[in-house]
Amino acid sequence: MTPLTPQPDPQRGAAVAATDRAHVFHSWSAQELITPLAVAGADGSYFWDYEGNRYLDLTSGLVFTNIGYQHPKVVAAIQEQAASLATFAPAFAVEARSEAARLIAERTPGDLDRIFFTNGGAEAVENATRMARLHTGRPKVLSAYRSYHGATAAAINLTGDPRRWPNDSGSAGVVRFWAPFLYRSPFHSENETQECERALTHLEDTIAFEGPATIAAVILETIPGTAGIMPPPPGYLAGVRELCDRHGIVLILDEVMAGFGRTGKWFAVDHYEGVVPDLLTFAKGVNSGYVPLGGVAISGAVAETFARRPYPGGLTYSGHPLACAAAVATINVMEDEGVVENAARIGAEVVGPGLRELAARHPSVGEVRGLGMFWALELVRDRGTREPLVPYNATGEANAPMAAFAAAAKANGVWPFVNMNRTHVVPPCTVTESEAKAGLAALDRALDAADAHTA
Amino acid sequence: MTPLTPQPDPQRGAAVAATDRAHVFHSWSAQELITPLAVAGADGSYFWDYEGNRYLDLTSGLVFTNIGYQHPKVVAAIQEQAASLATFAPAFAVEARSEAARLIAERTPGDLDRIFFTNGGAEAVENATRMARLHTGRPKVLSAYRSYHGATAAAINLTGDPRRWPNDSGSAGVVRFWAPFLYRSPFHSENETQECERALTHLEDTIAFEGPATIAAVILETIPGTAGIMPPPPGYLAGVRELCDRHGIVLILDEVMAGFGRTGKWFAVDHYEGVVPDLLTFAKGVNSGYVPLGGVAISGAVAETFARRPYPGGLTYSGHPLACAAAVATINVMEDEGVVENAARIGAEVVGPGLRELAARHPSVGEVRGLGMFWALELVRDRGTREPLVPYNATGEANAPMAAFAAAAKANGVWPFVNMNRTHVVPPCTVTESEAKAGLAALDRALDAADAHTA
Repeated sequence: MTPLTPQPDPQRGAAVAATDRAHVFHSWSAQELITPLAVAGADGSYFWDYEGNRYLDLTSGLVFTNIGYQHPKVVAAIQEQAASLATFAPAFAVEARSEAARLIAERTPGDLDRIFFTNGGAEAVENATRMARLHTGRPKVLSAYRSYHGATAAAINLTGDPRRWPNDSGSAGVVRFWAPFLYRSPFHSENETQECERALTHLEDTIAFEGPATIAAVILETIPGTAGIMPPPPGYLAGVRELCDRHGIVLILDEVMAGFGRTGKWFAVDHYEGVVPDLLTFAKGVNSGYVPLGGVAISGAVAETFARRPYPGGLTYSGHPLACAAAVATINVMEDEGVVENAARIGAEVVGPGLRELAARHPSVGEVRGLGMFWALELVRDRGTREPLVPYNATGEANAPMAAFAAAAKANGVWPFVNMNRTHVVPPCTVTESEAKAGLAALDRALDAADAHTA
Repeated sequence: MTPLTPQPDPQRGAAVAATDRAHVFHSWSAQELITPLAVAGADGSYFWDYEGNRYLDLTSGLVFTNIGYQHPKVVAAIQEQAASLATFAPAFAVEARSEAARLIAERTPGDLDRIFFTNGGAEAVENATRMARLHTGRPKVLSAYRSYHGATAAAINLTGDPRRWPNDSGSAGVVRFWAPFLYRSPFHSENETQECERALTHLEDTIAFEGPATIAAVILETIPGTAGIMPPPPGYLAGVRELCDRHGIVLILDEVMAGFGRTGKWFAVDHYEGVVPDLLTFAKGVNSGYVPLGGVAISGAVAETFARRPYPGGLTYSGHPLACAAAVATINVMEDEGVVENAARIGAEVVGPGLRELAARHPSVGEVRGLGMFWALELVRDRGTREPLVPYNATGEANAPMAAFAAAAKANGVWPFVNMNRTHVVPPCTVTESEAKAGLAALDRALDAADAHTA
């Protein structure tokens, strides 16, 4: 932990933490078993607490601060919009709203030229599936195990991770299938070509047996995020696109986490030539999370369905001026400062090679996957058997090896993203070469703690 | 329409509108049948377009700008928070988040002392019903016809207005009942006492026949908003509270629209002595919509359920610092400037008497209902039969009388809130006496257009 310039103020930090524990009910937590760290400030790739400890943020918050914390141009844009028109109702045309939609539509692939704004990713998925059901007149949506699509009722039921379980109402209208993942292949494949072919056959068969005319949409994270950062093999998404076309099924690609530069291109789907979804969901990186914002980019065909028939969905803050102004500024910053290119370059030249080098030395690293600023280390007890370092959805004592890894990372000045038996390396897309190298050095030391739990 | 100081700029307005039509997909609309007005600016109770037309906003946006547009103290608070810490992930303690939770918990009734933050009202309802189902272990939620609870899948299925219909998946887990509404009594009542008794008997019977042990929650807007601003008769909410207590059912009061001063008290439930819900949902007025924010205030008993067992819900922007800073500033402004008291006083002394006076002169006004800055005029073809001025959920030609009323209001310089056969008078809670009188005068002229359609 590097001491930082701002004067530590432990007393204030204690007050913030105490009020938090008295009144703030936290996401995904047993409220009496957590001790949230009080955060005093943040800048670029770093944040710090009230004790004077500074952390390199390898999480980008929850993978949303793609331009880092407190970018002065986006801060200024928020301040200016606040001064001119902080808020306005959704049924009107507002300059920031128009401009944000235009800038997003310019960057989304194909004819995804109309933007429905929401407050975040879950609502984007809610609305995308609503559009697909009404566009097709069909009831079911197919989603993948190993996925995350949000925590409203419809979105969590589409989600393929254990956060669904306590919310699973029986999943009416949702059918889950297996997407490709060679390292833990659901199809016993031996290489990427085989994994791609078998995954497509599995999806084709699932569609056939569910009944193609009952399926409104297939939803996939273009590159699954929290579920493990698994770039699909070449040909998979094109194959899914073809299956959807063949059966009149809407293809929804969820780019809430992977979009807006995270993968080293504007959208993850840009890595897969010729593939254009019918609907693309986004949030997070669209304005680096400086103001809550999400949305759906809509194809001409789906928009046409709601040209003369009312779209039966909406929300009070759709296209919120402050959120849209932050998006406009963020997109312009990304363009002007080469943020997408930086993510691609640092990923290809520093983080990727660096993580592979760590993998070569640390027996706890089973696989390195990723691209851009979107990387996962699969931590294992045994490289041969690929047994995860901790069991699926482990808590408490069973999760101790991952907890030890996380604690070691923090002790070495980096804040790690940890999920199941994985750590993700997802710093801001603005990360510098020296910051990336500092992060790799800290992970090197933290992985010793994971190595101690290998077989 | 009063001309305003800012220089009109029709060319810029046309560009904003054109970009909107090219790229913005709007809520609740047939996209090719709308022509959203381009808004240039707003201040206090007014907004204006690029042509130089200024409107007194009788809608508060969508009933959210409780402190009016562009309050300098809230604008400054947003600017300061943007400069210090615009965003941070939800798992941490952050000063603005702690302080917002504390200020809200201080004002919510009873022991609703823990705050789960969301981005808006729909997500608040999603999470409140999730909490109720897990707290009780029961599947069903009872909600009222004539209600609105949001547009995510679970929230819209709880909603009792026609916006549900295109989204109605068969409403698994939702049972709708009739709440009291003397003017169009579902129970053929002749007075409020009878309406209250009969509505409670109806709910009691519905609970008995659904099976009390299958019911997780009853959700009610404390005073229904978009559905018609119908303050429940004295004793009704106390009776619902008693029924819920008797059967171990969670009472959720939705104060997304009615909360934070709208009714002339901090919360609408404060008008009903002794009634405390188990969960209270809020959004809109909490920060006047300057930054997207909503949430659930949670009782001690429900919080205890998630003390040592993880709460299985969350969102990236839960307790967003910028949104929370706006809430802190808004609540302090409301306190320091007597905004709640102003809403109560202007409602009781100016708007209420003024609307009743209009009703006495305009045959199209069937009933005046409301309190604080929360008023509805029920427009009718015939006061005797109470036939609505337009049929339920009318569109196109069938809705012409209401469209004529709305156009006349705009031509007289006020922007009206119109829903079905009603106009709601819901200006900011900061509205002055002279603004309120100007609004009444404009409505007086606009009601002539409605009168022309009476039988």
